[in-house]
Amino acid sequence: MQLYIANQNYSSWSLRAWLIVAHFDLPATITKLPLFTPEFYAKLQGKTPAAKVPVLLDGEIAVWDSLAILEYLNEAHLNGKAWPTSIAQRAKARALASEMHSGFMALRNELPMNCRALRKVSLSPAAQKEIARIDAMWSEQMQAYPSQWLFGDWSIADAMYAPVALRFKTYGIELSAAAQQYQDKVLASPEIQRWLAEASLETDIVEEDEAGEPR
Amino acid sequence: MQLYIANQNYSSWSLRAWLIVAHFDLPATITKLPLFTPEFYAKLQGKTPAAKVPVLLDGEIAVWDSLAILEYLNEAHLNGKAWPTSIAQRAKARALASEMHSGFMALRNELPMNCRALRKVSLSPAAQKEIARIDAMWSEQMQAYPSQWLFGDWSIADAMYAPVALRFKTYGIELSAAAQQYQDKVLASPEIQRWLAEASLETDIVEEDEAGEPR
Repeated sequence: MQLYIANQNYSSWSLRAWLIVAHFDLPATITKLPLFTPEFYAKLQGKTPAAKVPVLLDGEIAVWDSLAILEYLNEAHLNGKAWPTSIAQRAKARALASEMHSGFMALRNELPMNCRALRKVSLSPAAQKEIARIDAMWSEQMQAYPSQWLFGDWSIADAMYAPVALRFKTYGIELSAAAQQYQDKVLASPEIQRWLAEASLETDIVEEDEAGEPR
Repeated sequence: MQLYIANQNYSSWSLRAWLIVAHFDLPATITKLPLFTPEFYAKLQGKTPAAKVPVLLDGEIAVWDSLAILEYLNEAHLNGKAWPTSIAQRAKARALASEMHSGFMALRNELPMNCRALRKVSLSPAAQKEIARIDAMWSEQMQAYPSQWLFGDWSIADAMYAPVALRFKTYGIELSAAAQQYQDKVLASPEIQRWLAEASLETDIVEEDEAGEPR
């Protein structure tokens, strides 16, 4: 398989697809394309009509959009183990993953991912409300699964929130003790450490807005 | 089961969950809550931590967010038939559904769903680009499945794009002939006709922005 991603310092959607590949050591070659360059668009031509990363190629099958890639790898290469086994827990995990996939617009706009940076920003009331929702969600899951992943074993929900843990670090967001426990676990994981090491070697400076366009 | 939705004139995410229930005649009671009223928040309390519609209750299981509800109903009540059977087509259908779920921000912002209205607006270049992407997507699927649903049989991808067909009607968006063929099919379907009839009886005037907040 081939997984196309963009700059690791900035591309939060890339991280989500990369993480499932890294976590399960799936046999995929990673190709990194520098965001918003002519090379980026040229290399994606014919692979995805959406002209965005991440994109996964698996033989004749092309899948784009992070959540579709995660669902595809779960079905085609992981025998379903990237979601909880119980249908009730799987429904909840999909609800949390979907909240991130479709929402948290203020957070995405005001706290863009930038792994190398440390910043202070003033947050809008909308962003504060979203952070409180994520804090409550992580805390609830840590009460159910102390010091584990959101649903015990690692799942697609953890892939969806990994960039949020990185953003909270970049912007020094204070969390409750239980939510902090989850953030610490994400940041200490070998896969995130590897992502950060690779991001630290990049030199391009680009930021994208919440729609994935150059800022 | 209980499905909580909001004003049918405005709530595009509600339509997506309602549509799978209507299409397969699933045994769910529909409860409509008027958007952004005290009743809306009071009735959702304890059912969804996200405080948004749609929400599905199935015995002890609560699922929120449209895509998570669609995936849940597909698994728990439809034996998988709301996605294409072929893994390649299912991957593509999930990619298209996910493009809508996570994106098309300009379209969502500039062309909010308002079933009863007929309007003209000036479109930003970003919205024009998104409309062109949807036109190309629908056209490609109509070439593969002439006059059928996006993947032949009705699927979750059709649920995701139904509100877009309504928006294109409200704002008089011109489409290519193939894309128009799909729009016509959606608008003529008995479920959409029923949704429009129910929306036409509503009298509240509320609009929400792309984050689901009152405009």
